[in-house]
Amino acid sequence: GTMTTDRLEGYRARIQAELDQVVAYWLKHSHDKVYGGFFTCLAKDGKIYDELKYVWLQGRQVWMYCRLYRTMDRFHLPEILEAAKSGGEFLRRFAWVPSAGSTGKCAFCLTRDGQPVKVQRTIFSECFYVMAMDELSRVTGDEEMQAHAESVMDQLVHWVRVDPSGLGQPQLSGDRPVNSMAVPMMLLCLVEQLGEGRPGVAEKYSEVGSWCVQQILQHVQRDGNAILENVSTDGKELPGCQGRLQNPGHALEAGWFLLQYAAGRGDQELKKVAVDKFLELSFKAGWDPEHGGLLYFLDADGHCPTQLEWSMKLWWPHCEALVAFLMAYSQTKEPGLLDRFTQVYDYTFSHFPDAEHGEWFGYLDRRGSVELNFKGGPFKGFFHVPRCLFLCEKLLDALLAETRSS
Amino acid sequence: GTMTTDRLEGYRARIQAELDQVVAYWLKHSHDKVYGGFFTCLAKDGKIYDELKYVWLQGRQVWMYCRLYRTMDRFHLPEILEAAKSGGEFLRRFAWVPSAGSTGKCAFCLTRDGQPVKVQRTIFSECFYVMAMDELSRVTGDEEMQAHAESVMDQLVHWVRVDPSGLGQPQLSGDRPVNSMAVPMMLLCLVEQLGEGRPGVAEKYSEVGSWCVQQILQHVQRDGNAILENVSTDGKELPGCQGRLQNPGHALEAGWFLLQYAAGRGDQELKKVAVDKFLELSFKAGWDPEHGGLLYFLDADGHCPTQLEWSMKLWWPHCEALVAFLMAYSQTKEPGLLDRFTQVYDYTFSHFPDAEHGEWFGYLDRRGSVELNFKGGPFKGFFHVPRCLFLCEKLLDALLAETRSS
Repeated sequence: GTMTTDRLEGYRARIQAELDQVVAYWLKHSHDKVYGGFFTCLAKDGKIYDELKYVWLQGRQVWMYCRLYRTMDRFHLPEILEAAKSGGEFLRRFAWVPSAGSTGKCAFCLTRDGQPVKVQRTIFSECFYVMAMDELSRVTGDEEMQAHAESVMDQLVHWVRVDPSGLGQPQLSGDRPVNSMAVPMMLLCLVEQLGEGRPGVAEKYSEVGSWCVQQILQHVQRDGNAILENVSTDGKELPGCQGRLQNPGHALEAGWFLLQYAAGRGDQELKKVAVDKFLELSFKAGWDPEHGGLLYFLDADGHCPTQLEWSMKLWWPHCEALVAFLMAYSQTKEPGLLDRFTQVYDYTFSHFPDAEHGEWFGYLDRRGSVELNFKGGPFKGFFHVPRCLFLCEKLLDALLAETRSS
Repeated sequence: GTMTTDRLEGYRARIQAELDQVVAYWLKHSHDKVYGGFFTCLAKDGKIYDELKYVWLQGRQVWMYCRLYRTMDRFHLPEILEAAKSGGEFLRRFAWVPSAGSTGKCAFCLTRDGQPVKVQRTIFSECFYVMAMDELSRVTGDEEMQAHAESVMDQLVHWVRVDPSGLGQPQLSGDRPVNSMAVPMMLLCLVEQLGEGRPGVAEKYSEVGSWCVQQILQHVQRDGNAILENVSTDGKELPGCQGRLQNPGHALEAGWFLLQYAAGRGDQELKKVAVDKFLELSFKAGWDPEHGGLLYFLDADGHCPTQLEWSMKLWWPHCEALVAFLMAYSQTKEPGLLDRFTQVYDYTFSHFPDAEHGEWFGYLDRRGSVELNFKGGPFKGFFHVPRCLFLCEKLLDALLAETRSS
């Protein structure tokens, strides 16, 4: 009806304006014109308060710039392409540490001029590296870079499914292997990334994709009543805090990954699991009835989580929730899902954006006050906010186009 | 005067009662009678919510039990000695992971039955292991155990001063060596521990002790106006967030370590630096003028720290502040230092103790509300609270004895 159309028009206008303004903030403040790549430790007003370069965030910013350049006319700008290329070059020159792990690894953190500071014994730096290289190769047409992205992907699949020893983690008898939600989520994201518009590549990774989906579904536990962040590799609940941990924002992100995957294959059953479990259960577990907003961590038995930041309201779970509920609504047209979107939208837009200097604050306390006032930090870069706004704008465009044509 | 005596009597009565009650809580809830050692993940009411055994906390509990058993008549109880021995045996059997690092390391975390879960590439598990073994050997008279503690100490000194490669950290070109305050503090603590009442051992580690003091003093930066948590190995300020980080509770703890060291040597100059710099500067930087209590982290230039928990009020900085100001007062009799003690005491005793179930909450938000309601967790065990109460009771006893005899 018209009321719904008006609501959607309103959201679309605000979201487009926010996206423009967020892109402008990072174009203005984050580019390192001397050494290449991006500064990501940016204060409230855009000042650089630390020059370290976090590889996750370098990769994510390259990816986001390229995706905007490739798919949105108003961002098809030489300035954006050049920045993405500079970031890609910085990563190719400096991200790899040949002596790390058993066959080389990507650093987690580099100095401004590209010297490695820290290497993690996980797969995530390499994942964001692949995202960056693949998306960059799509805008530059660099086939060697695309092949390079694929070869790192193959290494990732080997680490995850065949032999993790190359990551450099010691094998300890008390350290049971864990299916941590982040791992199949990241791999699924890469499967979708690499396969887009390339039937041969999609076919090559098709089995990996369905394995990832199965691994993600193992996190539905307790007779379908809870999403748990860590489960055993045979899909059982793990003992203790690790096993009971819930991360609602992460589960909501997994939800929209599954919705996207299900839509691509017309899989109605998977769509239903994504909505009923990953979206609804996570929202109900994570939404703070007292102050609003999504809590960061919870314990499925109601114990207090041991993470000191458990009750904070972070920007990114709200970004993921916005995408998840809008995507679910656009696939189902269930009004209840648009209401959920509205609830998250109202909290998000009244708490996170900074009207004075632009961009969003990232970290609120339980009551909703800004507790860390920077715009970029070791884990907050040009990624969750613009990805959310970009995806929501696209979803709203499609919804509004349907409304108009009906 | 009588007013001061009355104040001190009041503090002493409350502190003694708290210590009794805290010891009772851990005796009742934390002992693993099946596998030995201690549960430390204890909920508000003492229930065990996770069975993992953190080696720092196992070692600290052994040390604290032994110290109470050895130096306070009312805790010279078979139950306490047996628990300490059980913890010591658990550590000797299970803490060492021969395959970790290049010559074996202590685990950071073990399963309930002693299987290693995680090994850190730092020195702290080994430090708390040495504290435990040395103090236990003092109550049991086990000379082999004392020699073992000393041999681990020699390994620690080698890692810190000669060659860190055995810790297993990769050497990365962007990762400059850092003088992190925790390292010389821990070594100094062990020098004092091992040397107590043993002139030969004290002599052996005397040079290490004065090296530690010099390393700690390098953290006085900015023309004597700030204590910084991390400095370069040649005593300069480091760039970025790492260099500007302040941890007032930690600097206050360093302060009373220095006071103790200075008192043992009659070093008036060091005493003055400890009070004027480590105590006063840290208190002024860390005390929250709005809500009271000590903030966890600060940035020396006033930027927002990147640690999500920076503005929380943790129990242990308050414990360290109580010890620091009471020790400084007892050494100087400066009334201003007793006023500082009073200010910290009033905040601490009105916010942290749990009148319902005993023991102290550990984690308050900036406003002083309990944000994590457990009594024990991965980093909170039987250590900071009882050590503080034990040291304060001893200091108050000495002060009151002086008053009575004057």
